Amino acid sequence: MILILKSEVTDDQIRHVLERVDQLGLQAHLSRGTFRTIVGIIGDEEKLRAEPLRAIPGVLEVVPVLPPYKLASLDAHPQPSIVTVGGGSSRPAKFGGGHLGLIAGPCAVESPERMFRLAEVVRRSGGHVLRGGAYKPRTSPYSFQGLGEEGLRILRDAGDSQQLPIVTEVTDPRLVETVARYADMIQVGARNMQNFVLLTEVGKAGLPVLLKRGMSASVEDLLMSAEYVLSQGTSDVVLCERGIKGFDKTTRNLYDVASVAAVKRLSHLPIIVDPSHATGRPDLIPACALAGVAVGADGVHIEIHDKPEEAKSDGPQALLPEQYRELVEQIRRIAEVVGKRID
Amino acid sequence: MILILKSEVTDDQIRHVLERVDQLGLQAHLSRGTFRTIVGIIGDEEKLRAEPLRAIPGVLEVVPVLPPYKLASLDAHPQPSIVTVGGGSSRPAKFGGGHLGLIAGPCAVESPERMFRLAEVVRRSGGHVLRGGAYKPRTSPYSFQGLGEEGLRILRDAGDSQQLPIVTEVTDPRLVETVARYADMIQVGARNMQNFVLLTEVGKAGLPVLLKRGMSASVEDLLMSAEYVLSQGTSDVVLCERGIKGFDKTTRNLYDVASVAAVKRLSHLPIIVDPSHATGRPDLIPACALAGVAVGADGVHIEIHDKPEEAKSDGPQALLPEQYRELVEQIRRIAEVVGKRID
Amino acid sequence: MILILKSEVTDDQIRHVLERVDQLGLQAHLSRGTFRTIVGIIGDEEKLRAEPLRAIPGVLEVVPVLPPYKLASLDAHPQPSIVTVGGGSSRPAKFGGGHLGLIAGPCAVESPERMFRLAEVVRRSGGHVLRGGAYKPRTSPYSFQGLGEEGLRILRDAGDSQQLPIVTEVTDPRLVETVARYADMIQVGARNMQNFVLLTEVGKAGLPVLLKRGMSASVEDLLMSAEYVLSQGTSDVVLCERGIKGFDKTTRNLYDVASVAAVKRLSHLPIIVDPSHATGRPDLIPACALAGVAVGADGVHIEIHDKPEEAKSDGPQALLPEQYRELVEQIRRIAEVVGKRID
Amino acid sequence: MILILKSEVTDDQIRHVLERVDQLGLQAHLSRGTFRTIVGIIGDEEKLRAEPLRAIPGVLEVVPVLPPYKLASLDAHPQPSIVTVGGGSSRPAKFGGGHLGLIAGPCAVESPERMFRLAEVVRRSGGHVLRGGAYKPRTSPYSFQGLGEEGLRILRDAGDSQQLPIVTEVTDPRLVETVARYADMIQVGARNMQNFVLLTEVGKAGLPVLLKRGMSASVEDLLMSAEYVLSQGTSDVVLCERGIKGFDKTTRNLYDVASVAAVKRLSHLPIIVDPSHATGRPDLIPACALAGVAVGADGVHIEIHDKPEEAKSDGPQALLPEQYRELVEQIRRIAEVVGKRID
Repeated sequence: MILILKSEVTDDQIRHVLERVDQLGLQAHLSRGTFRTIVGIIGDEEKLRAEPLRAIPGVLEVVPVLPPYKLASLDAHPQPSIVTVGGGSSRPAKFGGGHLGLIAGPCAVESPERMFRLAEVVRRSGGHVLRGGAYKPRTSPYSFQGLGEEGLRILRDAGDSQQLPIVTEVTDPRLVETVARYADMIQVGARNMQNFVLLTEVGKAGLPVLLKRGMSASVEDLLMSAEYVLSQGTSDVVLCERGIKGFDKTTRNLYDVASVAAVKRLSHLPIIVDPSHATGRPDLIPACALAGVAVGADGVHIEIHDKPEEAKSDGPQALLPEQYRELVEQIRRIAEVVGKRID
Repeated sequence: MILILKSEVTDDQIRHVLERVDQLGLQAHLSRGTFRTIVGIIGDEEKLRAEPLRAIPGVLEVVPVLPPYKLASLDAHPQPSIVTVGGGSSRPAKFGGGHLGLIAGPCAVESPERMFRLAEVVRRSGGHVLRGGAYKPRTSPYSFQGLGEEGLRILRDAGDSQQLPIVTEVTDPRLVETVARYADMIQVGARNMQNFVLLTEVGKAGLPVLLKRGMSASVEDLLMSAEYVLSQGTSDVVLCERGIKGFDKTTRNLYDVASVAAVKRLSHLPIIVDPSHATGRPDLIPACALAGVAVGADGVHIEIHDKPEEAKSDGPQALLPEQYRELVEQIRRIAEVVGKRID
Repeated sequence: MILILKSEVTDDQIRHVLERVDQLGLQAHLSRGTFRTIVGIIGDEEKLRAEPLRAIPGVLEVVPVLPPYKLASLDAHPQPSIVTVGGGSSRPAKFGGGHLGLIAGPCAVESPERMFRLAEVVRRSGGHVLRGGAYKPRTSPYSFQGLGEEGLRILRDAGDSQQLPIVTEVTDPRLVETVARYADMIQVGARNMQNFVLLTEVGKAGLPVLLKRGMSASVEDLLMSAEYVLSQGTSDVVLCERGIKGFDKTTRNLYDVASVAAVKRLSHLPIIVDPSHATGRPDLIPACALAGVAVGADGVHIEIHDKPEEAKSDGPQALLPEQYRELVEQIRRIAEVVGKRID
Repeated sequence: MILILKSEVTDDQIRHVLERVDQLGLQAHLSRGTFRTIVGIIGDEEKLRAEPLRAIPGVLEVVPVLPPYKLASLDAHPQPSIVTVGGGSSRPAKFGGGHLGLIAGPCAVESPERMFRLAEVVRRSGGHVLRGGAYKPRTSPYSFQGLGEEGLRILRDAGDSQQLPIVTEVTDPRLVETVARYADMIQVGARNMQNFVLLTEVGKAGLPVLLKRGMSASVEDLLMSAEYVLSQGTSDVVLCERGIKGFDKTTRNLYDVASVAAVKRLSHLPIIVDPSHATGRPDLIPACALAGVAVGADGVHIEIHDKPEEAKSDGPQALLPEQYRELVEQIRRIAEVVGKRID
């Protein structure tokens, strides 16, 4: 941690700063420059983080030297983690460490018939994990909110029918146990990325977690939210870039592929891309999926539907089964170039 | 609702669009332009919102004509709402309809002594509602998370000692009832603005709600979240502008005062400003508070602390008691110019 | 300047870093922490800025300690500057140091009749400087591009008829001299804020400059552009906040009033607000103008028109004469509260 | 064009709207809905664009139906354009229509020796066009501003030595002719994307133009700026995505690859990517370059340097010669998968 002091700092203030550092059992290293005085603090940065150093009189700025996350960092785990989803009634899917995992399915679970049909599409196309929402976080209270536990049951059965592990979103800490009874992987959605109560519960469930990046979250914010989950004992977290807020309404969100490459330099956790939510435009999804694989993502999350104009949620951004099948073929070829294995 | 069709739309597709509209019991109004065909849909727009119209083949764009919120809209309630907080053991505070309410207190409840001291500061300075966090949503799992129910008790007692109503944040739907037993007003924080599970529980608690704008929320998103709360039966929601994400790190967030003026043209709900979180800089907070009052806010939310360098949360952005006292004096004078009453 | 070295930095790399600093005639101050090594550099930071220090092997991050602008900084000029516009054929207007200046007029100069009419509106309402565009930077090549020199002549005459100094935009470095022959103040528009060729020419013209903040410019970028102008010899620069890019299309741009307060802590230059361009909505302009005055702006820039639906440019965001008159009355009252003088 | 009228619109106002449309020689199509009245306007939308329709009393919103650009649109030219750069003393390079062009070189021309060395690196690595800045737009007036015409001469000679066409930036309309005497392609930088005076001069020069997207420009803004160039007679414009402003400082800018796919659906113009400026981080550039090719870009622009720590401009973001060579190999393999030809 480095403290940059104000140009008008007094000697008394400097003394006070040094005392505060000393009280914390750390060593201060004073450096008086031509224009500014700087205090380097040597020792465990963690002790300092909780302290409101910028509020000490005379302090202009606080520059941290280490990242604020530990379990999620490369320091804690220098090799890429491999997260395995499913097993038992399904074929296990892998994310990370060279494995590219493919998640697909409808936005919401709508009916058994459709879900079974789409499960077959996913498996036949080469997908690894089936998705479908039973609890939908909708911006309007008047929109379809999902089938609830009935949806979980349908999703489970549909997955089993094709030996596909399933992932589904949970939005309520009171329902984590219920969801965990059915799912192989639990999703925390973008709008709940900083719902720390939910992150804590999900981290205790003992299942792999798919953590989506919030629309206003920096890469560091995303890793801090992963830290919440990891700090509960889970080691299996898969991150997901799904678009952040931007000023250009050409696409629904701004698809930040560079964040995928950046995460690789900061963390051992796998990170996948979700071009469906990132763009909101089926005509752009395939090209953007390929970009995600080329940049180094450990997986691709795609929403599909066999009759988008009847979908109960996000129909306009779904790929058709045929489009998904073709996309998987292209993903395979790009994956090969960048040295990823698709099981 | 207006549908703009693609230039290459076929007659069959147009027929299909008209059929879909007809099935919904609505009337379509076809208008073939020189370059594009447009379908105006006449009838209850609500029925259409749930339909994925943009997924119908041949449809380029869907232009809604009415806002998606109802209870929060001026159509539902053309006069500004006045929200009253407290009563009983405290003097009631009012927000909206010409009343300017002042909320202040520390970020977190830390100890009874400090809380009582700061309650006195708030009351003596002319503030109306005491704030303090007992459950803190922190980006790091290693940061101070609040005193929990013990914090609620301290806050209640401190408020009572000065006859000030209290507001405090809830982050867990399982704790809404507990919080409601102590508080006069429940706060939903920015990070939970689209935590629809929490909004729903909070809406059932029977207390006024302080709803903070999310960092990536548009004005419409904010009003949709208010709609969630209102749809549960509560009619007392106070909105709060507290800064959104921006590219310039000069301030912690981007303080969007124009949104206050915009909300006034869309909704009857009171809206206040929180320059503490919006800027994160005590040197800018007073000026930005005045800007908020000048633009028409129905209240001002300020974090204060008597020893910021010892604060357990957000110390660097707290105003000192003396600074707060001076600020309230200036707020009074601006309020008078824009025709607001401070009780 | 502080260099934070990579955790895996080698001794050879550290030696190389120290040599580079030494070659520049500066002193390095090495501080080996528990996790990171840091190099504080003592001496003239300016020498270092031009050096690509982050490209030296082993360097993780470079943290500057001083701002990159000098002439625009408070260090160079600790008292607020007062910029005077006009004199001679007009009554001089003042910006800064407690003086609040009011600029108003149509977006574009359209005809002598209209310009004279609006000049009278400005003067009678209490405005100080008349604006009008003769060279319009339009996003479409097919839009009205302004009347050119004929427009300058009309604007000059209209200003003179009411003894109002005039300000007008220049977009072409070849026309700076021409514009300077007519105008009392030269405007550089938001889209040209980083047109360094134009800034350099404008800085040589010997007239006060109105420099508008670019839509993607940070406060530091704005001050660096002012530095360009100042480095040519001019000392009279007035900055202008006119909205930056944001994700919410409720307003045309995001009106960043906190930047006004922030500039006051960094620079001696006056800064005014332009709520017309910031919001693009006449129904929000008056409230946002008051917010700008309350936050400490040294002036207000407003576009007016007597028949907006006939305007050749930006009609939908113009205030009517009557609205402007009322607004000036309110501005006066807010100005008084914050201790500003309106001449 | 569609006009959505206010709910409180009067019959007189509707009559006035219809009259205005009629005066323009267009047909209005009135549609009275349950809650709103809508006016569809049939005829040449271009006539309407110049009119401030939103300023007509009673009009709430104006929804355009056609894009505001014509020459840049797919309607004007349904097949992808192929832009050829160079010929004569150099081997021609092609962009678009299946051709992937590779541009590389240092940020600034620094010396003949370095420029010749880097030209050889570019040619040997498989690059097609040599870049180098002679006139540098720098945010600080105290930074290196480029070698000027001497730099152009060096760049030309270096390019000729390897039969590489050259591209270089122009920032001053007075220097377009000079630059055009040396260059094979003229670059307009991001900061000048809406410098319409420069766009107009560049459009007259008779050379292919490389137009970089501004940091706050939407895809539509970019195409409008291309329209400026095209409207001067040039048909050879290559667009370039180089990162836009975002809130996360993990990368210098936000690399918007989805915009590449979006441009393909709107325009016939080739679009390339510049991951050097988009990310500002050499460790992310290769991965991001591959993402750009995978998403469908028609070329890749990369900054290289053989001694980044000595570079006079943007050293920290340059790739080393060896890194560039490897990158081109990978680009070739991705290009093959997406059906692009590299000559």
